[in-house]
Amino acid sequence: MTMLAVAILAAGKGTRMKSQLPKVLHKLGSKSLVERALNSCDLIKPDRSLVIIGYQGEKVKSALNHLSGVEFVEQTEQLGTGHAIQQLMPPLDDFEGDLLVLNGDVPLLRSQTIEELVKTHQENKNDATLLTANMPNPKGYGRVFCDSNNIVTQIVEDRDCNRAQKQNNRINAGVYCFNWQKLKAVLPKLSTNNDQKEYYLTEVFDYLHRVMALDVDDHLEISGINDRCQLAVAYDILQARIKEAWMMAGVTMIDPDSITIEESAQLGIDVIIEPQTHIRGNTIIGNGCHIGPACLVENSQLGKNVRALYSVISDSQVANDTKIGPFAHLRGGVVLGESCRVGNFVEIKKSNIGHKTNIAHLSYIGDATLGNQVNIGAGTITANYDGVNKHPTIIGDRTKTGSNSVFVAPVNIGEDVTIAAGSVITHDVPDDSLAIAREKQKVIKGWRKKN
Amino acid sequence: MTMLAVAILAAGKGTRMKSQLPKVLHKLGSKSLVERALNSCDLIKPDRSLVIIGYQGEKVKSALNHLSGVEFVEQTEQLGTGHAIQQLMPPLDDFEGDLLVLNGDVPLLRSQTIEELVKTHQENKNDATLLTANMPNPKGYGRVFCDSNNIVTQIVEDRDCNRAQKQNNRINAGVYCFNWQKLKAVLPKLSTNNDQKEYYLTEVFDYLHRVMALDVDDHLEISGINDRCQLAVAYDILQARIKEAWMMAGVTMIDPDSITIEESAQLGIDVIIEPQTHIRGNTIIGNGCHIGPACLVENSQLGKNVRALYSVISDSQVANDTKIGPFAHLRGGVVLGESCRVGNFVEIKKSNIGHKTNIAHLSYIGDATLGNQVNIGAGTITANYDGVNKHPTIIGDRTKTGSNSVFVAPVNIGEDVTIAAGSVITHDVPDDSLAIAREKQKVIKGWRKKN
Amino acid sequence: MTMLAVAILAAGKGTRMKSQLPKVLHKLGSKSLVERALNSCDLIKPDRSLVIIGYQGEKVKSALNHLSGVEFVEQTEQLGTGHAIQQLMPPLDDFEGDLLVLNGDVPLLRSQTIEELVKTHQENKNDATLLTANMPNPKGYGRVFCDSNNIVTQIVEDRDCNRAQKQNNRINAGVYCFNWQKLKAVLPKLSTNNDQKEYYLTEVFDYLHRVMALDVDDHLEISGINDRCQLAVAYDILQARIKEAWMMAGVTMIDPDSITIEESAQLGIDVIIEPQTHIRGNTIIGNGCHIGPACLVENSQLGKNVRALYSVISDSQVANDTKIGPFAHLRGGVVLGESCRVGNFVEIKKSNIGHKTNIAHLSYIGDATLGNQVNIGAGTITANYDGVNKHPTIIGDRTKTGSNSVFVAPVNIGEDVTIAAGSVITHDVPDDSLAIAREKQKVIKGWRKKN
Repeated sequence: MTMLAVAILAAGKGTRMKSQLPKVLHKLGSKSLVERALNSCDLIKPDRSLVIIGYQGEKVKSALNHLSGVEFVEQTEQLGTGHAIQQLMPPLDDFEGDLLVLNGDVPLLRSQTIEELVKTHQENKNDATLLTANMPNPKGYGRVFCDSNNIVTQIVEDRDCNRAQKQNNRINAGVYCFNWQKLKAVLPKLSTNNDQKEYYLTEVFDYLHRVMALDVDDHLEISGINDRCQLAVAYDILQARIKEAWMMAGVTMIDPDSITIEESAQLGIDVIIEPQTHIRGNTIIGNGCHIGPACLVENSQLGKNVRALYSVISDSQVANDTKIGPFAHLRGGVVLGESCRVGNFVEIKKSNIGHKTNIAHLSYIGDATLGNQVNIGAGTITANYDGVNKHPTIIGDRTKTGSNSVFVAPVNIGEDVTIAAGSVITHDVPDDSLAIAREKQKVIKGWRKKN
Repeated sequence: MTMLAVAILAAGKGTRMKSQLPKVLHKLGSKSLVERALNSCDLIKPDRSLVIIGYQGEKVKSALNHLSGVEFVEQTEQLGTGHAIQQLMPPLDDFEGDLLVLNGDVPLLRSQTIEELVKTHQENKNDATLLTANMPNPKGYGRVFCDSNNIVTQIVEDRDCNRAQKQNNRINAGVYCFNWQKLKAVLPKLSTNNDQKEYYLTEVFDYLHRVMALDVDDHLEISGINDRCQLAVAYDILQARIKEAWMMAGVTMIDPDSITIEESAQLGIDVIIEPQTHIRGNTIIGNGCHIGPACLVENSQLGKNVRALYSVISDSQVANDTKIGPFAHLRGGVVLGESCRVGNFVEIKKSNIGHKTNIAHLSYIGDATLGNQVNIGAGTITANYDGVNKHPTIIGDRTKTGSNSVFVAPVNIGEDVTIAAGSVITHDVPDDSLAIAREKQKVIKGWRKKN
Repeated sequence: MTMLAVAILAAGKGTRMKSQLPKVLHKLGSKSLVERALNSCDLIKPDRSLVIIGYQGEKVKSALNHLSGVEFVEQTEQLGTGHAIQQLMPPLDDFEGDLLVLNGDVPLLRSQTIEELVKTHQENKNDATLLTANMPNPKGYGRVFCDSNNIVTQIVEDRDCNRAQKQNNRINAGVYCFNWQKLKAVLPKLSTNNDQKEYYLTEVFDYLHRVMALDVDDHLEISGINDRCQLAVAYDILQARIKEAWMMAGVTMIDPDSITIEESAQLGIDVIIEPQTHIRGNTIIGNGCHIGPACLVENSQLGKNVRALYSVISDSQVANDTKIGPFAHLRGGVVLGESCRVGNFVEIKKSNIGHKTNIAHLSYIGDATLGNQVNIGAGTITANYDGVNKHPTIIGDRTKTGSNSVFVAPVNIGEDVTIAAGSVITHDVPDDSLAIAREKQKVIKGWRKKN
């Protein structure tokens, strides 16, 4: 089997991004552009992956250090795409096989497309195979002219096209598969005889013999990112793909244009996503959930038939039939049981909540363990932080806390306990007890007239 | 006058919806697809309405049981549209008049269009009249060929069209008006001589004589729903209609694409709807109201010049000049007076609030009656729930509650009362009094150094 | 240098707006239509600016009274555009120079376009110069026919066009620059010989000699507003301009269609704006801020790297590295220090907050001054309002307030103070102290069985 190396061009600054960050590190959803370029090779499983870095190369390296097996090749001066590929000659000196060349700022290529390109290249024993697209508006792109067998006869830059040539809307997508031995032999021939005084990779096609073109079906795949308007457009394209796939799989979206769903999320059937909802990270939404409007769900797992609206849910697990919001915030590892109700203006942090427990209004529950069928009164607060450390609160099954009560952690409250409204609880309370910590009510009549 | 029956085809599963629910029960806004098909007959007032059910027929029946006069006809096997209409022969055995046939998954037909179809049918004494549309992309639809009087000469399925026929973009919308006697006579002739081995209703046009076509002006009306992408598109079309109508009637919308308004809502003139706002159910928004961004208003009636932002208002009434939000939630039958201010992180449930009363911050008011010019301090809570029952709180005119006070209901607070901050009020308080229930402040100096 | 006067037609009612407000006072973002028409003359610095008022003229006057140097000319009857310009004859009796005529309901003209129109007019010594646009759909507009030097040979109203003339999509934008002396001479000749029996300004072109046309590049600039659908479309066009400019300047927007940014805002580089965020008024967002989803930021200044989500920030200043939300509200002149955390369900009003101070949950802080490294416990409230006046609360550096504590202002809390949970603080507390105001906890065992 032919060996395969992938090279990603990622050395440029991307001046038009107007950023402190190199262009290829800008994010499209959860992933940087360059990571997406690498991901588009997932199906072909390359033997080697080389990222050509230059501008802020260390930042690019460190942004990719969660990926294994990536080699970095430094291009100290940015003298053109041909020059970039020339930098591969030392690291690939002994390599025999094919080289796939991708741009680090072209993030929407499907891995199926890349697989087909490599397959076409190898089955036809081409010197080079290049991806082409039929663009509705080809202006600015190099045009590719082929014979009836898709053998490339000519590639003409836009500015060099005559009127007839400009009518050709088949363009060079800048994605290539090369026979590395053949490429290596001609790379030294590259010159800078052009307006930009750069080494262009496309010059190699003057020296290679069997060059074939392969059309991509969907020209949007080859969208390159040069500025933040294009970044926004690419995000729309990516989102449209993801959302269409989930709708076809059984998810109802109301106003899908206002919704974003990262590709890492999993959604069940008969899920309803309301407008202005965002699903991010490793999130799983179970069958029949109804989420939104205006929810943000990140890295969280929701069971079946969960209802959430106007809420933020991060890093949490929510069991079946629980209702959240409006205006709730779960974060930092909440585990919420079945058929709970977490209501208005409630924040829960890193807590374990049993089944059928209600925390309906104006409460902060942090570092707590609550049993089943607990009723947390409005305004209940776990004072989990003494200014230095966090402490736990434990509340047993069926316990009811009065309004505006405070639990000064660490504190352990039993089952079937009643906490009187307005009480500050500083000591443990045994099962079945009433705990109270408040002054009796006094009335001063006629007070208003005196004041 | 000719009798009129309507038959809705609603027996299919709708496999591409990927759902536990039969397709026709999916909702488009507040109503199911099949209910919308029925509603499109509102202007013609049919003498009989028959819904042909099959897959999960009981669910369809029960989803429509709030509509009177609907008959259900069972089609136990789904053997095609012709077979479905054959099931009408027993229930319509004695019926004389016209039969309108609609699809349960075509929800956007205007009742004016249906009225015109029936009128055209009856005035021209046709055997059958069918709705046609000129589709920008007719691919997949049967093409309808007519003479200059709109008399149908031929209907050709897409797959049977020759190149010239494919150029015809006048398509069969699948909406028919038949002379029932004529139809009944030919229904038994239907065969299954086709690829799908199904009984097609369109075969009847081979046997009927005077068949006329009527073009619908807006081809979007005949959009059918086969998957959830199409459901989302149909919702957009429906919303565009509703929002355009309200804008033309004097409502300003900022970013209308981000707004949804159900057709059951009524909006006054000079209403401003800000982005990401959703108006649902039987909601009335009075003149000059300014709603949004990011509000959900359901089944609520707002007076004039109400201002609401970042809030959820359900099942409530709000009088003129009241300001709500950001981050407020009214629900469960709130009646809110004029010129009130309901502020940040405030939930009000099933309460009656007078005029010029402020509940500005961090409060929960439930099952309460508040007078005029009451000032509810931040953090005030009505403890309306003893774990078993809900109890009322009554607060008189001009009373002021201190911050973090709790009313343990049932409790009755007079007029001009002052409640001290941090008090838990468990007993009634007469007019003009000060009620206080708290411990005196103690200061332990140098405490920090010791701790 | 030639003198220049501008006249804005602003006398009409705008019946199709269906409004209590005259059309030109409807707002497009932060400014009325007529103010935008005036603003489009910013580059040419006219010597005189005349607004022709009629319907609800007093309202128009008062809506513009923040602009200096605007003269108002009354058109008591609305007898057409020609009649409106005739009203300028008395106030401009002595004026010598050019007159620019704009419509008060055409708000999207760029000032560069107006400048070019005036320059073209003056350099060519034209009697009149009119702005033309090439409309994709010119239906309804008067067509302009020119020779090869852009000298107008004919202007034909849409209804008078023959089939060939209708093919011309160069239309009259209704924006004119006149030699006032020449115009003044022919204005009395206007007749009402037309269908509408109105005095049309376009009739003057029958009498003027050298009339030139100037094409606007972007036909969207001449969009006129006649109804609220067009108002919404114009807002989209305006927003697209603003957002594209900021993206090109280094701002990332996720789903820009869901975002609105007023032109008065300033954004730094590498700012990220998440969906459903609205930036209004004199707002400055520093480099690296990450705002949204679902924020409203009005008249506020944010430093660098501020993170805000699901929050409303008005009339406030926020220093670097501070985190706000979800669900926070700053208003009324908050000054918030560096590296603070303002969390869930927190409202801050007119307060001065030091650095590294946390107000993380369920608090209301009003009229307060907080030092550095203060920790405000959940449920802390400053009782700043005694029902009549607002009073200040001062809290020193490193002080910690317990959960559900209340500060009854005016009150002065020292540095390094600890406030016990549930305390109502009514008196000043010196440095290093513990302040406590609560009852001891009592436990009644077996209470549940008795109750």
